[in-house]
Parts: sequence; structure tokens; C-alpha cells
Amino acid sequence: MTTDKIRVLGENTIGYESSAEGAIKFRTFNSLLNEENPWTFCQATAHEIESAVKKAAEAFPIFSSLLGLRRAAFLETIALEMEKYKAEILEVYVAESALPLGRAEGELTRTLAQIRRFAKIAKVAQWTDPTIDINDKADIRKTNVPIGPVVVFGASNFPLAFSTAGGDTVSALAAGCPVIVKAHPMHSGTSTLVAQAIRMAAQKTNMPEGVFSHLLDGDNSVGEALVKHPEVYGVGFTGSFNGGKALSHIAQQRERPIPVFAEMGSVNPVVVLPGIIEENGAHWALTLAESVNLGAGQFCTNPGLILGVQSIAFKTFCNQLGKALSEQKPSCMLHPKIFEAYEKGSSAMEQMGTRIAVDKKDSDKAHFAAPNLVEVSGGDFIKNAALQQEVFGPFSMVVICDDVEELNAVITHLDGQLTGTILGNPDELDAYGSVITSLQSKVGRLIFNGVPTGVEVCGAMQHGGPYPATTDSRFTSVGDDAVKRWVRPVAFQNWPDSMLPESLKNDNPLCLLRRYNGEFTSQKI
Amino acid sequence: MTTDKIRVLGENTIGYESSAEGAIKFRTFNSLLNEENPWTFCQATAHEIESAVKKAAEAFPIFSSLLGLRRAAFLETIALEMEKYKAEILEVYVAESALPLGRAEGELTRTLAQIRRFAKIAKVAQWTDPTIDINDKADIRKTNVPIGPVVVFGASNFPLAFSTAGGDTVSALAAGCPVIVKAHPMHSGTSTLVAQAIRMAAQKTNMPEGVFSHLLDGDNSVGEALVKHPEVYGVGFTGSFNGGKALSHIAQQRERPIPVFAEMGSVNPVVVLPGIIEENGAHWALTLAESVNLGAGQFCTNPGLILGVQSIAFKTFCNQLGKALSEQKPSCMLHPKIFEAYEKGSSAMEQMGTRIAVDKKDSDKAHFAAPNLVEVSGGDFIKNAALQQEVFGPFSMVVICDDVEELNAVITHLDGQLTGTILGNPDELDAYGSVITSLQSKVGRLIFNGVPTGVEVCGAMQHGGPYPATTDSRFTSVGDDAVKRWVRPVAFQNWPDSMLPESLKNDNPLCLLRRYNGEFTSQKI
Repeated sequence: MTTDKIRVLGENTIGYESSAEGAIKFRTFNSLLNEENPWTFCQATAHEIESAVKKAAEAFPIFSSLLGLRRAAFLETIALEMEKYKAEILEVYVAESALPLGRAEGELTRTLAQIRRFAKIAKVAQWTDPTIDINDKADIRKTNVPIGPVVVFGASNFPLAFSTAGGDTVSALAAGCPVIVKAHPMHSGTSTLVAQAIRMAAQKTNMPEGVFSHLLDGDNSVGEALVKHPEVYGVGFTGSFNGGKALSHIAQQRERPIPVFAEMGSVNPVVVLPGIIEENGAHWALTLAESVNLGAGQFCTNPGLILGVQSIAFKTFCNQLGKALSEQKPSCMLHPKIFEAYEKGSSAMEQMGTRIAVDKKDSDKAHFAAPNLVEVSGGDFIKNAALQQEVFGPFSMVVICDDVEELNAVITHLDGQLTGTILGNPDELDAYGSVITSLQSKVGRLIFNGVPTGVEVCGAMQHGGPYPATTDSRFTSVGDDAVKRWVRPVAFQNWPDSMLPESLKNDNPLCLLRRYNGEFTSQKI
Repeated sequence: MTTDKIRVLGENTIGYESSAEGAIKFRTFNSLLNEENPWTFCQATAHEIESAVKKAAEAFPIFSSLLGLRRAAFLETIALEMEKYKAEILEVYVAESALPLGRAEGELTRTLAQIRRFAKIAKVAQWTDPTIDINDKADIRKTNVPIGPVVVFGASNFPLAFSTAGGDTVSALAAGCPVIVKAHPMHSGTSTLVAQAIRMAAQKTNMPEGVFSHLLDGDNSVGEALVKHPEVYGVGFTGSFNGGKALSHIAQQRERPIPVFAEMGSVNPVVVLPGIIEENGAHWALTLAESVNLGAGQFCTNPGLILGVQSIAFKTFCNQLGKALSEQKPSCMLHPKIFEAYEKGSSAMEQMGTRIAVDKKDSDKAHFAAPNLVEVSGGDFIKNAALQQEVFGPFSMVVICDDVEELNAVITHLDGQLTGTILGNPDELDAYGSVITSLQSKVGRLIFNGVPTGVEVCGAMQHGGPYPATTDSRFTSVGDDAVKRWVRPVAFQNWPDSMLPESLKNDNPLCLLRRYNGEFTSQKI
């Protein structure tokens, strides 16, 4: 049944059906108003989980064999449906996240652009990476195929872009994998609205019923059951280290282990070289302060670690950064629990280092996070692993190293990170070659004279990094290559042309660039 | 010191040094002569393991930043050195494997071709997959970089092609990863000779010392210590399910988990459709029998499972297959332990099914494996998981299904496999669409009217498949894409051109095909 009404219903979406069998109910919270939201959500039962997976498994052979054009039409219709219900989605988004309307609008715009980008990726299908070798011994042709139904977990800090119709979901749909979304409990209302838009799009474009389901829960049990299910083939997750590690562990303990792509956060080291701060310290202090405080610091690419070698100029820079942070406007955090964790984490860091004066203005408003900046020595940083822990929020730590050698030691000591940034004059980079090499070995993305926040959705983006930033540094969760997480190669040897996947047929009906006997060509064979 | 003498010394190779510190000694066995070989090998100590890893870690930043041309020269010199000592290598190979000289020569030829293929891959470096997006917001460029030192385990059944200078090692070296080989205990002599060739090549081409080390052990302890070592970043393994699973488990339990690419075997189902056997049954029975018995059946792509729907023609085909297997010449297995496991596994299968008459000729010779063929019903196969276990050797099992529905159920019930084969007339394939779809979901390579043995080294090869055939179905251990196991992408944002990796520089010095703002081009920027 297609309906043009959309409202927060609190039900699970299982294929084309709504379902609310369970007895466990929960609500979301308006952190800004400091009160519960009015909607009641019904946690999915074991039976509902089983139905969703069964429908996904049944949909897989049909959905995966559709032409990319058909999947593209589905994705484009998701964007259209979301646009149609934009006002409702934004209203619930703001009530559930305490983020400002401007941010909600920006994130929706980005999410829609991302959906349309993956519609194009589904259509063009260059990710199939077709490779053909024909010689007198054999005719072997390889193409990527989708892995099977996957589970996507909504992320607390991106109710749209990294949640229900976010990058994980749409990259998996583009590849041909049915998706079961486990909504984030903090924004289940936003998630159900988007889920309804996806369901309507699936019906309008005649997708097999199980191509998408949406399950609710207030704790972790539904997610765990999904990751354990034998008919699930992959998992996308953005969240805490403990959450990602637990899911990854469950997935590895299965009789048939499955990949978990967990993006688990990062402190995103920024290395400040001496030349640039002598010339332009105030500018970079302000730029960094804005990046630290952006969205109440609730970004996985938040610059949480500032590294430099001790000097008068660096000390001045740190003070400028402290002052610039004082002048930043505090804002409300996503949820009381996230605010509490920030306060606790931020205070713990103050105990372990020296607080650089930052006014705690507006911190009397409930759940408003005041920026904080703490200073430690390179020696202490290396000795105390607790100093590497991410404080989710507008927090940053300055690590003052005695010399370049200690700076190198600090970087070598770092855990894997999503990003690493160098602030420096181009002419001083050569002198810091080993610093840059060390930093590269720790990160997925290197930034020069910029800030790590702001993750561009494009072909060249790498949003992922060595463990524990993610569980698998070989893949990205943002940008075109995100689709590669949901596929695996299959080779066809001496296979009849009529039975080959489109990407491998002699006449190259998808007009793909293919490796043919070692050369790239889009010619027919 | 470069030397032109080469002989089995029984020492570990640690960078450019030989080392034999340990007290634990072991020997290899000549299965054909039923006696120990004359050489004594010295198991690596904890200190030697530490030295090898330390040298590899020190070599990594140097080796990984060399131009691909330099790494190519190293690989090409390995091939030259191995050719120079061909006679010695082949003699020890035969003594340690009981495989005929012709097979040894063939495997050496293949191994040398593979080394030279990866030399070209190192030089061309298209695997860096360079991707560039430049717009008014940012300049983002992504390229693959090597992950770090890796450990490669020699495989029992391919003393050259899947061992010391085999596909795992040379693909990792091509990518820029130093390699520590843990020699297979059954052919440690062959392995030390090849290791000496690699060491000489490294010295002649001025590679950093730790680029290659070679450690010996008679059990599993050295391998386990290597996989646990914090400075190891990846593992390549070809061997048993239990071995691969154990290593994978160790790698996951580390503080920083690392990828283990384990190829753990397969029964390689062959689905026989009715049309083809009515027309050409005797031909395919002989072809399959030869494939089952090739190399005493000691191939991971050995066709160990023949599936068909009951009919007089299929019964006749099974008898023809039994007769053809009787006429195959038994040959000596690699090692008494492997022979014993074959006898035990083969007998256990006979207890669970019905033996199809195969003469057990020549089985009086020690360690000579007589081919065996056992028949079970589709119903029994589904009920008894033990029937899916691989019997390593010239064994195959016929599964006779009541109807196409049961055939489909059997395939759905299968574990992940390296290969799946369809023997059929082209005009009968349409009627078996669901069988083919099911089979595809279980395998890494599909073969039409051929046999799965014979794994072509080319761009389109996929040697890998869903768990438990391998630990990671997204990668191949044979063919050009094997290099992708040892790399991860790094994005450079607004990075100065002079500091970018060669693959990303504006003037495209490596002349690579690059994705630039969504289009493939080899133009400069």
C-alpha cells in the first residue's frame, strides 16, 4: 500500500509492512528542551528480526540481478520522497538532535546529493571492475558482485547522512545488497520518517519487497541479533570504539564470519610546524578553534590533538587557540548522555594535564558544551595511553614536545586515525620528512593547511583509517568507493556470453572501461 | 657478502645474515624413498623472530618509498638467481615433495613467470588506483600505499608457486611490503635455497636489508609468534582450514587486528547436467578423472564433489568416472602424514557412502594414493555435514539428487568454495538458472565445461571464495589483483605537489590511468 501521509508512527518497517509486535517501548529525548519527545517506539522482536532478514534474503537474488538502471531509479525516488517530506523530517530531526535547523538542512542537502551520486554509481557500475583475459588456454572474466543482505546501524551524530538513507545504506543498495537498518535509538523518529520514504520509493519503483527494512530498539539487542543472523553478509557501523569492537567480535565469532565496516572515531592529530605560526598563528588558531567547536565538536574528524615542538611562538599559538575557543559559542549536545560523557571525559583530561584558559560561558544551559583545551607534554602523552582517548565534543589537547625527535616519538606512539593534518609553510616540509612519513602511516587522510572537519563526498575521499579508527583501513565509508565494501569478485571461465553478467558480455552493453588482456578499453570484444 | 655457492644450510635468513641460534632441529622427509632427507634445519628462536621483524620494520619506510622500477629490478633479479640455481632447487624439491621432476620444472617455470609478472606490476603501479578530485572546495587525491611488513606461510602442496618466492611473497614485495617467510616444515630445504636466491637478489639490487627474511620451524610456534608481533601488518597463508582459522583467530585477538588472507581449501563442486552426459559422457568422465588424480589430487581446486540428478545416464556416467579413475596411475603423496590423512579421510567417506568400484592398484607402494570415488544421496549429503569435508588427495564424491529441487537444496547447503563447475550443453543452461545462481553465491570462480584444476595467473583470475574457502572472499591469492591484499588507500587533501606520491603528481610521471573528477584519463593535470 502506497500512502502519501507521513508521520512518526513508532513502528518497525519490514519490507512493505509496518509491524509493532513487541512489548518494549522507548522514546527519544529533546536535549534542548530537556524533555522527552512525544512519540513512542516499539522495539523489534525476535520474530520481526527474523521476518526482516528472511525478506532480505528472498529479495537478494532478484534485487542483485536487476539492471543498475533499475536500482538507480529506486535511489532517485528515495531522494524525491525525502524531498517531499522535507519539512516533517527536519522538524523531527531538530527535536531529536538539538542541532540547529541550518545544520539539519545542510545535512539533508548533502544526504540527497549523496543518494543521487550513488544512483549514478548504480547506473554506471564501473565498480564492477570488469577484467577479461582471453588466450589460447582459457577465457576468464572477472566482475564484482554484491555480497548479500547487509545491516546498517544509524550513527548518533548524523541522523541523515550516516543513518537510514545515509552513505552505508545507499552504497549497499547501489551495489545490489538489500539493507536492514537498525535505527539509532536517539533519533528513531527521524529514522522512521526516512524509512517510510524509502519504503514508498521501493514500492513505486517495483523493488522486491525485502530490499529494505527498518528495525527499532532502545538498547543493543536487536543489533546484536542482526549481526549474528546467518543470512546477513556484512555490516556498516559508525559510532564508538566499544560498539564497533563488540559488533566486530560478534561477526568474527560466527560460524561464517562476515565483514564489519566500523568507523569508530579518531582524535585527528594536527601537527603545527614553526614557520606557519610565526607568520600566521592567529589565523590558524581561529580556524582550528572553529573546527574544534563545529557542531558542538560532535564529528569523527574533530581535531582533538594539536602537536608541536616547544617554542615561544608555539606557546603563543596555544594561547591564541585558547582565546579563540573562549570566543566560540557553546551549543547544545545531541543527548544528555553524550553531554555527560563529554563533561566526564573533558574533566578527566583536565586532571591529567593543564587546562589552557578557556572561558566556560553558557555552560549553565543544560547540555550546552563549553569548549575545552588541555595541554600535556610529549613525554606524558607517550607514558599515558588514557591521553589518546577521544573526548567526543568540543575538546582538544595540545601536546608540547621537547624537540622534533619527541614529536616523531609521539606520532609513532599514536593509534590509527581517520585524519592527520600538517599546518606548515611549504618550504619547511622537507625538514619534517620523517614526521610526515610517520603521520601517513597512522591515517587514512592527510590534510595540508586545512582542517579535518568537512568530509567531501567524492571519488578521491578516504574516510577510514588504521585500527582503531576503523576495523578495516582498506575501505572508505564516504565517497564513491564506499560501494566496494559490499561486493566481491567472481571469475567466469569459458562461460557462455549469454549467461555472463552485463559487465562482462562481449558487446559491453554497459560501456564500461574494462581491463582486457592487461589494457584498459571500453571496446567490444 | 654475496656468494655464488648455494646449498641447503639449514639456517634462518635474517635480512642479509644467516642465523642458527636455536637448539631445536628438524629434518624433512623423502616420501618416495621412505626416509629422512640428509639436511638438518634449525628452528628460529624468539630472538631471531624479533630480529627479522625489527629489520623488516626498519626496511619498510625505505622499501615502500622506492620507485616501482627499483622493486621491479629486485623481483627480476630474484627470477634470475632462481634460474641460476635451478638444478639445485629442483633436486631438493623432488626429494622433499615426492613430486615428479616434470611437475617441479613446470612449477618453477610458472613461479618465474609469476615473479616477472609482478615485477611488471611493481613497475606499472596501476594498482595504486589513483583518484583525483579537484573543485573549488578542495583538492583531494587518493592512492594505495603498502600496509607494512607481512608474513607469508609456505604451502605444503606448492613448494615454489605458493611458497618462498610464490605469489604471496612477490605480490607483497611488488606493493612495497617487506616479507618474512615462514618456511613450510615439509620442504624447508627447497625454501632455504629460494630464500638464498632472494637474499642475493636483494643485495645485488641494493634493497634495504630487512626487505626479506626466512624463518624455519618444525611446528607452529614460529608462525604464531610472527602473527602476534605488533610490527606485522598482514599475513598470507595457503593450507588447512584449521591452520587458517587458528591464524585468523590470533590476528583478530591482537590489540591491533591485522588481515589474514588464508586460502583454506575447497571441495570444488562440479554440477553435471543431463544433456552433456548423454552426448559426451565418456569424454567428461575421463577428463574429470584426470583432474581428480592430477598431482595425486593435492590441489586446492581438486574436483571433490560431483553433483547430478538421478537418471540412467547419470548412473552410467558415474560408472564411467569410476572406471576412468581406476585407470589413472596412483602417485606418491607429499609426505607420510598427508598420505595417512588421505587414507583416513577416504576410508571415513567410504563408511558414510557407497564406494563406486575403483581398482586400488599400486596401493602397496608406500605413500602412493589410489584414487577413490564414493557415492551418497542428496538427502544424506544435506543431513551429514561431515560429507562436505575436504579429503586432500585423489578423492571425489558423487552426490545423486532425486530431482532438480534437491540439487538446488544441496548447493544451497554447501559451504563457500574456491570454484564451481557446470558441465552442460549451452541449450540446457536456461532450465538450470536457479542452480547456476545458487552455485555462483558459493564460489569465487565458475567454470563452464572445463575442470577447476589449473589456476591461470592473469588479471581476471579469482582464486578465493566465500568462507571457509578463504578468510576474505574480496581478494584473490593468484593473479594481478593479489597485490591489492597488501595495500590501503590514503587521501591527500590540498597536499603540495612536490610531496605527493608519484601516482598523484600533477604531471603523472608514472603515466597511470587515473580517475580525475570522475573520468578516466592518463593526462597531466
